[in-house]
Amino acid sequence: MSKTGGGNFFEDFSLGQKIIHATPRTITEGDRALYTALYGSRFVVQSSDEFAKAVGYPRAPLDDLLVFHIIFGKSVPDISLNAVANLGYAECVFQQAVLCGDTLSARSEIIGLKENSSAKTGTVYARTTGFNQRGEVVLSYVRWVMVRKRDDASPAPPAHVPELAKVAALPGAPVISNWKFELSGSRHRFDDYAIGEKIDHLDGVTVEEAEHQMATRLYQNTARVHFNEFAEAQGRFGRRLVYGGHVMSMARALSFNGLANAYHIAAINGGRHVAPLFAGGTVFAWSEIKDKASLPGRDDVGALRIVTRATRDMPCMEFPLIDGSPGNAGVILELDYWAVCPR
Amino acid sequence: MSKTGGGNFFEDFSLGQKIIHATPRTITEGDRALYTALYGSRFVVQSSDEFAKAVGYPRAPLDDLLVFHIIFGKSVPDISLNAVANLGYAECVFQQAVLCGDTLSARSEIIGLKENSSAKTGTVYARTTGFNQRGEVVLSYVRWVMVRKRDDASPAPPAHVPELAKVAALPGAPVISNWKFELSGSRHRFDDYAIGEKIDHLDGVTVEEAEHQMATRLYQNTARVHFNEFAEAQGRFGRRLVYGGHVMSMARALSFNGLANAYHIAAINGGRHVAPLFAGGTVFAWSEIKDKASLPGRDDVGALRIVTRATRDMPCMEFPLIDGSPGNAGVILELDYWAVCPR
Amino acid sequence: MSKTGGGNFFEDFSLGQKIIHATPRTITEGDRALYTALYGSRFVVQSSDEFAKAVGYPRAPLDDLLVFHIIFGKSVPDISLNAVANLGYAECVFQQAVLCGDTLSARSEIIGLKENSSAKTGTVYARTTGFNQRGEVVLSYVRWVMVRKRDDASPAPPAHVPELAKVAALPGAPVISNWKFELSGSRHRFDDYAIGEKIDHLDGVTVEEAEHQMATRLYQNTARVHFNEFAEAQGRFGRRLVYGGHVMSMARALSFNGLANAYHIAAINGGRHVAPLFAGGTVFAWSEIKDKASLPGRDDVGALRIVTRATRDMPCMEFPLIDGSPGNAGVILELDYWAVCPR
Repeated sequence: MSKTGGGNFFEDFSLGQKIIHATPRTITEGDRALYTALYGSRFVVQSSDEFAKAVGYPRAPLDDLLVFHIIFGKSVPDISLNAVANLGYAECVFQQAVLCGDTLSARSEIIGLKENSSAKTGTVYARTTGFNQRGEVVLSYVRWVMVRKRDDASPAPPAHVPELAKVAALPGAPVISNWKFELSGSRHRFDDYAIGEKIDHLDGVTVEEAEHQMATRLYQNTARVHFNEFAEAQGRFGRRLVYGGHVMSMARALSFNGLANAYHIAAINGGRHVAPLFAGGTVFAWSEIKDKASLPGRDDVGALRIVTRATRDMPCMEFPLIDGSPGNAGVILELDYWAVCPR
Repeated sequence: MSKTGGGNFFEDFSLGQKIIHATPRTITEGDRALYTALYGSRFVVQSSDEFAKAVGYPRAPLDDLLVFHIIFGKSVPDISLNAVANLGYAECVFQQAVLCGDTLSARSEIIGLKENSSAKTGTVYARTTGFNQRGEVVLSYVRWVMVRKRDDASPAPPAHVPELAKVAALPGAPVISNWKFELSGSRHRFDDYAIGEKIDHLDGVTVEEAEHQMATRLYQNTARVHFNEFAEAQGRFGRRLVYGGHVMSMARALSFNGLANAYHIAAINGGRHVAPLFAGGTVFAWSEIKDKASLPGRDDVGALRIVTRATRDMPCMEFPLIDGSPGNAGVILELDYWAVCPR
Repeated sequence: MSKTGGGNFFEDFSLGQKIIHATPRTITEGDRALYTALYGSRFVVQSSDEFAKAVGYPRAPLDDLLVFHIIFGKSVPDISLNAVANLGYAECVFQQAVLCGDTLSARSEIIGLKENSSAKTGTVYARTTGFNQRGEVVLSYVRWVMVRKRDDASPAPPAHVPELAKVAALPGAPVISNWKFELSGSRHRFDDYAIGEKIDHLDGVTVEEAEHQMATRLYQNTARVHFNEFAEAQGRFGRRLVYGGHVMSMARALSFNGLANAYHIAAINGGRHVAPLFAGGTVFAWSEIKDKASLPGRDDVGALRIVTRATRDMPCMEFPLIDGSPGNAGVILELDYWAVCPR
């Protein structure tokens, strides 16, 4: 049997299958600094130990999406090495702050399988859970991916599509106090945002090959389409593809301009990478306040349900939608999430 | 009122105005490592905890220019987002070593305003001060920038141009002992340098888009001209511009070859970015010893007043000047500073 | 005398000469994170403090090649600034794990000199030793480089070519226990590998200018050919050359796919950079199990002697050799080393 892993194909998965992913990872100040250098994020709780301690954290927690990418990366060799497309996310809940020095590991369960009509591919639904070194769940999410079959003639498994919540259950969040709005980048608090409000985040950032490769490797994500120009030059797009999570983090960092106090992503309700991004493209973003929620018994923070859309080579002053007019063809990401914001 | 910050225009500033800048930042070993990867700096006190402790520091301090860039970055959203040009620096004094784990924050005061004759822009003079988590001043400097007016018809404020010292006051520096010249990269000490001496730093380094973008984001500097190829392709230069501070750090790292023992920048007397740098350009540098000074009561170190000039695509064996012959058109930076050097 | 170091020429070296290299360096979590971002390495002992502690390390050690590059980098200004080519390595032994917080320094001894028949260059053999802050040897290796003469007319020194072991002495390695194969990325242990076995590591990674420059600067390696496009455009290759050690680390990271449990490089028997790599090239790798050895009195681990070959723009399913058919022209590196693997 070959010692090199070529990844699982659709027929290698079974409903209820549990997978322990390789390579636990201790997260450090080095990862935090690289995340800053890659995205320029300025959310204050993640930037300053002093601010974080003053509001109630033991110290500055790591950016939520950095944790997401690290856990996601661990699942790639087992789940999506032969994926055609990463179709969507749901029920993503950030349950525990991750601090420098924590060691993260990941496991997945296959919760759905459905062969596609072509019989060449099938959709795999996996729930992936990230743990810290104390065995506490830090993150849990469902993703579904279209995976190639090894052999088109392999019989289809019984189709099972899991029921997934349209809106993720909102987890608790650390109690905060003493928020200093003069240091956080904005005076706008939870009550200042209205359902339906749209915010153009104004700025655009151009992505370079070295940047997305370094980011994706930082997450120990081995998906081949991001790294191998020799092969991808002959592939679907004729070039390397930027990891979708890189776009998520770019959009989140851009969203600081307008959402500076929405400091913590508590849950991701859904996400779709609706078009690819390549190096040289410039990413813009805009957000819509989709809903607002109180946290039970809490008057320190509320949760904003935000839908952030990222575009490539298209400024967002006209708030482009996925399924809009031809002029809206530049949307590449739609991310629907709950962010915690001081009241 | 819009929640997104488009930055202040000239008429938004007033003399004596005080600004608290957003997003305090805890500096870590990650920032130090990235600084090394971006510039290859080899000054020994900043590279080795053991060497730093042996000479008298509690541990290796962070590179002075890294501290400068972090403080500078905080001032950008409030002061220079609508700047046409960063015109100059003065009275920059490094008052306190910054160690990993320190949290830096910044405040500015507007100390001068003068509308330009075009009535389209004005010069803003700001004194920016960086603090550590104990409220101690780590750095203070003046810069002046040409900022656009929102409305050309806005009335001009009374012109006030501050008097600025031509040479910064030399601050104290930690007492050192047991300097090991065999480990520091050079046998040359304070007394080996002569006023008027010129040093070609020999090497050249080519800058890449990914490098200057990562550097500028590491400093949480949001100036748009560095990141947005989509917009800048239509802009003044037709492409992204490298952050001037990136050039300062490149030149300082190059200056190690010839100034290895000038380990600590105590003050910057003045600095001018006289021409832009773009990715693909190769930076060279040379330095002139402009003056020498004793530190009161100190026989361990002296201060060299150094003027370092950086060029693009032009080796420096002929010591090119800003206002020299046409062949000197490649100078991009002139930086006049005091560096501490063991005697 | 010039204050800038232009590096030693062939006639500057003497047999038995001892050199203390400059700029000791404290290695931190920042260096580790950058190494991950640059190569995507997933070897578990170096990735997870928890895993490392469970098997018997005080915490996750740094990647062996990171340590090699840091020590190598220190030797460049004194030994190879005027090198035409880095010809080979031998007797490289990793004697002590390096942990974050350790400070590394390096010394070399010239152990051989031989002028080439052209009288324009000569081969310098140097044994370089790396130390930690306790003065313990962490690494020792021999390399030989072809170095330019300053003056072709300089007389040749007596030729002395040292005898070097074909296979490095295998050092001890920390005793391990409780290896969890489900977390390490592979079920294959020492006994599963057979002498003569060949493993194609499958994946390819394209290198960017910003990546190899950041890597090489992280190692404080000042070799000019890697950084100066202005000069190299007129040079031998017409462009910047990727540091050979960057290729070693790329190949090692690729080898995880097939050799996941070969977690520690104990020794390098030999290495040759047989062709240059430039940005834009895609690196592939394959490995051959050349030999197997027990460690005296140890039943926890064994040592695999592995020869890894890296190629550019050439997948390795046909296991290309250096001196093979024309179709094998893509091999750029051959690295012969001992890796420790749990039994």
